[in-house]
Amino acid sequence: MVVVGIVGASGYTGGELLRLLARHPEVEEVRYATSRRLEGKPVWKVHPNLRRDYPDLEFSDPDPVEIGEDCDVVFTAVPHTAAMELVPDLLEGGAVVIDLSADFRFDDVDVYEEWYGVEHAAPELNDEAVYGLPELHRDEIRRTDLIANPGCYPTGAILAAAPLVEEGLVDVVIFDSKSGTSGAGAKPSEVTHHPECAEDLTPYNPTDHRHLPEIRQELGKLGDVEVHFTPHLAPLVRGIETTAHGLGDVEIEPKELRELYVEYYDGEPFIRVCEVGEAPRLWAVRGTNYCDVGVFAVGDGRVVVASAIDNLTKGASGQAIQNMNVRFGFEETAGLEEPGYHP
Amino acid sequence: MVVVGIVGASGYTGGELLRLLARHPEVEEVRYATSRRLEGKPVWKVHPNLRRDYPDLEFSDPDPVEIGEDCDVVFTAVPHTAAMELVPDLLEGGAVVIDLSADFRFDDVDVYEEWYGVEHAAPELNDEAVYGLPELHRDEIRRTDLIANPGCYPTGAILAAAPLVEEGLVDVVIFDSKSGTSGAGAKPSEVTHHPECAEDLTPYNPTDHRHLPEIRQELGKLGDVEVHFTPHLAPLVRGIETTAHGLGDVEIEPKELRELYVEYYDGEPFIRVCEVGEAPRLWAVRGTNYCDVGVFAVGDGRVVVASAIDNLTKGASGQAIQNMNVRFGFEETAGLEEPGYHP
Amino acid sequence: MVVVGIVGASGYTGGELLRLLARHPEVEEVRYATSRRLEGKPVWKVHPNLRRDYPDLEFSDPDPVEIGEDCDVVFTAVPHTAAMELVPDLLEGGAVVIDLSADFRFDDVDVYEEWYGVEHAAPELNDEAVYGLPELHRDEIRRTDLIANPGCYPTGAILAAAPLVEEGLVDVVIFDSKSGTSGAGAKPSEVTHHPECAEDLTPYNPTDHRHLPEIRQELGKLGDVEVHFTPHLAPLVRGIETTAHGLGDVEIEPKELRELYVEYYDGEPFIRVCEVGEAPRLWAVRGTNYCDVGVFAVGDGRVVVASAIDNLTKGASGQAIQNMNVRFGFEETAGLEEPGYHP
Amino acid sequence: MVVVGIVGASGYTGGELLRLLARHPEVEEVRYATSRRLEGKPVWKVHPNLRRDYPDLEFSDPDPVEIGEDCDVVFTAVPHTAAMELVPDLLEGGAVVIDLSADFRFDDVDVYEEWYGVEHAAPELNDEAVYGLPELHRDEIRRTDLIANPGCYPTGAILAAAPLVEEGLVDVVIFDSKSGTSGAGAKPSEVTHHPECAEDLTPYNPTDHRHLPEIRQELGKLGDVEVHFTPHLAPLVRGIETTAHGLGDVEIEPKELRELYVEYYDGEPFIRVCEVGEAPRLWAVRGTNYCDVGVFAVGDGRVVVASAIDNLTKGASGQAIQNMNVRFGFEETAGLEEPGYHP
Repeated sequence: MVVVGIVGASGYTGGELLRLLARHPEVEEVRYATSRRLEGKPVWKVHPNLRRDYPDLEFSDPDPVEIGEDCDVVFTAVPHTAAMELVPDLLEGGAVVIDLSADFRFDDVDVYEEWYGVEHAAPELNDEAVYGLPELHRDEIRRTDLIANPGCYPTGAILAAAPLVEEGLVDVVIFDSKSGTSGAGAKPSEVTHHPECAEDLTPYNPTDHRHLPEIRQELGKLGDVEVHFTPHLAPLVRGIETTAHGLGDVEIEPKELRELYVEYYDGEPFIRVCEVGEAPRLWAVRGTNYCDVGVFAVGDGRVVVASAIDNLTKGASGQAIQNMNVRFGFEETAGLEEPGYHP
Repeated sequence: MVVVGIVGASGYTGGELLRLLARHPEVEEVRYATSRRLEGKPVWKVHPNLRRDYPDLEFSDPDPVEIGEDCDVVFTAVPHTAAMELVPDLLEGGAVVIDLSADFRFDDVDVYEEWYGVEHAAPELNDEAVYGLPELHRDEIRRTDLIANPGCYPTGAILAAAPLVEEGLVDVVIFDSKSGTSGAGAKPSEVTHHPECAEDLTPYNPTDHRHLPEIRQELGKLGDVEVHFTPHLAPLVRGIETTAHGLGDVEIEPKELRELYVEYYDGEPFIRVCEVGEAPRLWAVRGTNYCDVGVFAVGDGRVVVASAIDNLTKGASGQAIQNMNVRFGFEETAGLEEPGYHP
Repeated sequence: MVVVGIVGASGYTGGELLRLLARHPEVEEVRYATSRRLEGKPVWKVHPNLRRDYPDLEFSDPDPVEIGEDCDVVFTAVPHTAAMELVPDLLEGGAVVIDLSADFRFDDVDVYEEWYGVEHAAPELNDEAVYGLPELHRDEIRRTDLIANPGCYPTGAILAAAPLVEEGLVDVVIFDSKSGTSGAGAKPSEVTHHPECAEDLTPYNPTDHRHLPEIRQELGKLGDVEVHFTPHLAPLVRGIETTAHGLGDVEIEPKELRELYVEYYDGEPFIRVCEVGEAPRLWAVRGTNYCDVGVFAVGDGRVVVASAIDNLTKGASGQAIQNMNVRFGFEETAGLEEPGYHP
Repeated sequence: MVVVGIVGASGYTGGELLRLLARHPEVEEVRYATSRRLEGKPVWKVHPNLRRDYPDLEFSDPDPVEIGEDCDVVFTAVPHTAAMELVPDLLEGGAVVIDLSADFRFDDVDVYEEWYGVEHAAPELNDEAVYGLPELHRDEIRRTDLIANPGCYPTGAILAAAPLVEEGLVDVVIFDSKSGTSGAGAKPSEVTHHPECAEDLTPYNPTDHRHLPEIRQELGKLGDVEVHFTPHLAPLVRGIETTAHGLGDVEIEPKELRELYVEYYDGEPFIRVCEVGEAPRLWAVRGTNYCDVGVFAVGDGRVVVASAIDNLTKGASGQAIQNMNVRFGFEETAGLEEPGYHP
């Protein structure tokens, strides 16, 4: 049983952590749900779905060292740059930190500094951090106190292509991803203003999204591949569909390709491999920690594989809890058993 | 621990039962998931969200008496008229039956026959049936073997207005309800064809929907009130928002009105009472068995109260499981702990 | 041919005016499209749909008197209170003013001051203003220089119920209206943040929305009727569906009821009367100046009539242009011929 | 002035033709709107948006030769294979035929037969047919009596990439397209059942969609390029967003790239070129014949260009009317002036 803190609990990923922790069998208590702006306000006023689950928990704003001392594990769901300021104190306090920001995701601090345009505040800690994609780094996650939870797009993209890359089947992969609007966070903006986006679908940061170096880093560990990535905002609330277009001199049948994925992900509790020709559905992963992978089409020197995740769950808070489970030796699926919906 | 059968498991309510039963702590096994049309097909091929949860369960089509013999409880999720043909056999087999159709919802068989335009096939059983809204009939539900699970609209409407009616605060209630498209079932039709309905919102059966007599029957037990009802198809997947417009010589403050609801529903595990002025949100009940009730506005001889439910959960399959829990003496929230989403 | 000015051209109603005026056969030029914040910026940068139609028009911020002098007609699409500060100068300049705000909609200034909580800045002008619903006030509109363009909800509500009220068929009408999100304007807010509203539908200001006194004023001129109104935010972009629930000792067949509407609106260019039982569709009025009226159901002392409008067109800018056409003796449908879509 | 016939007028493209022809200045009359199934029914009962525009036109089912004799131009909006059976008779009657099916789109009948799996019924006519994309084939369109109107996806894809390919900037183009549900037609199916698709987004026919050979044929005329294509069903009604991922040893600045497009499409009435970094918006082309092209990003040997069209207008019926305008020497924009919406 662990005592948990959430630093930055007023946003969507903070709320999703609260939702999933409410019934987690190994969680003794969520002791802190911080928000400077909302200090003293009950968390359920911001997350009314949790009215019954946290009747008394209020947003607080204590000292990070204190949070680290009182908690076994702290989730940091704050913007990048804010996280790296906090994490040293949290670690000093003695907690395991699972950081949902980008601050500790890069093996090479220079890459971070180049893509995020800031100086890293804790480069010495960066070396201890493990990229928290359990399907690729389960063992390292078990042995670290600082887990860098992956970005939403990288989670869907890496899991869609890892077997392809590791097998050396393709030379180039172009990820064309479509995200629901909750990926933009709880703060209103023109981009997610309903009249503007509800019947539209647009690419953004088409060649230079900050999740690109993250995908490149992880796939680069698996094989030699050229990686491109273009995200789109799609008119739906939760979910990322990623279509991975792989190019190469591919000689494989769709059935074999699927078999390759089945073997690669054998035993993985959160990867569900679809049938050949079956597209993964966003409603089937909604609210869950699953990444469904499917399609498995081959034609004219191209392979197409698609993945579906919930950007707030497997793409953020669900994966963070999976990381907690791995790190603390809990059942990996603890608190994450939701099977998904139809429809 | 109970063995369960689902008669009619290929539709949305059947799938929702499977989803909720998959993790129910008191369910030993879902032994039957019937579908004449899909016999022999794995259930996950129709409900791909349940791929991992029912790897081996296939649709079957056994004799109803056999189902009744093998199961402790059987959910019938078939169209009206089909249910009343099956239920006698299921009961004869020895199972408790929770019928999601309209066939046993009316105290007076004549009302059923008038509104549904068919002769009742089992009028003698109708007297044993209990209207399965636990908030109103918990005790009778405990003592019957035939539970008539309420309609989706009636659930939202009755729960929104029961305290008003029982207190005699209003003379007339007009329910203006807006349902998501999953309420129309899994079978495609022009009405739910995405291009036709996605940016539209239309009333249908405005004065003569079959759920009207159901609402009248139940509210009529609580007080003397004139009831009207108009449903609408709204462009969302899951959820029913019901706005109850109560008319009468009302002398009450919104705060008192809310207090009345808090007391009326005190101890109810699935009714969450919102703050004064707070509208219940459909995302907060999505996939859950909650009915959130709120708004509590008063003005010019009118009271407005609104409710939000998920039409497939509290409006159908979740409530059916709540009824099972009540009937078998399980924890009433067993298998129904999902708190809802934000967003 | 007229020269036109638009005061407040950066919002949705301003943009809709620009769209409709671009091809209006009697418009010589849109000379001003004002915006203090965006002065000097091409209008098409804010309204990219109009890239080709206004290649050179820039947002400007001239003196109101000057605008009034240079233009034959000025549309004021600014928030309430801002309009009443500007209108005197525009009129002084010599222009006809069509005001899309609420500032001049009330016959009785006291009603305005009570509901809007401000002192009226130009009460002497208020008497000259005509409520610009051509179906009810066409003759007065022809003779005034200050037209108060109706609110979006009142347009749909009044047109849905006017024949009912004028015929004295009902004693009470409850309007339950559902609006698309564009009704909230172009400024992002939590209410219209896509993740919050896209799968939700909520009532707001259920007994005290500011459009209520407007509906009461206009229907009160037609007959003696008790009026209630509750608006809802619905997950669609453009359109208001209004369900009018009329109560009374009604003795009429749906067919006769429809006939009554056909006669009442005989010759009206923008009212399309649906068949008995046919719900008006939002896509059929989208982008158009039509108000489709239908349903015509009767039962148990209740009448149900529904209307559909596009909140930005018949509910705002289209109606404003209709008012210009009436006032200047143009063909009433000039510039407003768009028939609507399917789907 | 021309007399027009529409063969197959009950579907969405038929309805869209009726909508656009209703106000076309060069159309004397729409004489035929055929539908075998709906013979004798007023067209507005199926397309209620056109209630006022075609009060008397009924679906009819005359002999094709007769239609060809009575009309100057006939649009065939019927499924592939049905078209090639009809077209010879229509041409024999003397009409110009604009065929919205795939039957005459391929220069090489063998390609058609291979991809559509049927024998061509009128191979001798195929040679006369011109691929009706005016931006590429305006002169040939003027001189033929049989215009093969392009597919919806190919229109968006070809226009997005033509300048890239003609300039030889890229070696490979992968088109990742996302279509609204109206592209699937008016017939309900599971794929477009609202509960299934409204919060989902899925790829289909990822390597072998029938529009692929059409795109390859046309781009192949412009340059030597490897073409791939994957379509997706997106949760919106009207619109196709196409992201063209071009690979090659590209040495160009985004600004130059945009300039290239501006020059390439100079004078084109329906191509609007966006600014660098500006994504084309689906609402800005909705209901219009525009193809907006934008984004113009370059990075790491990749070019990204995106296009937006309305699949029923520029992607089908609007383009068909543009083809009529070109063929008959009318103003090319006649009947197609709608500028689009915001929002």
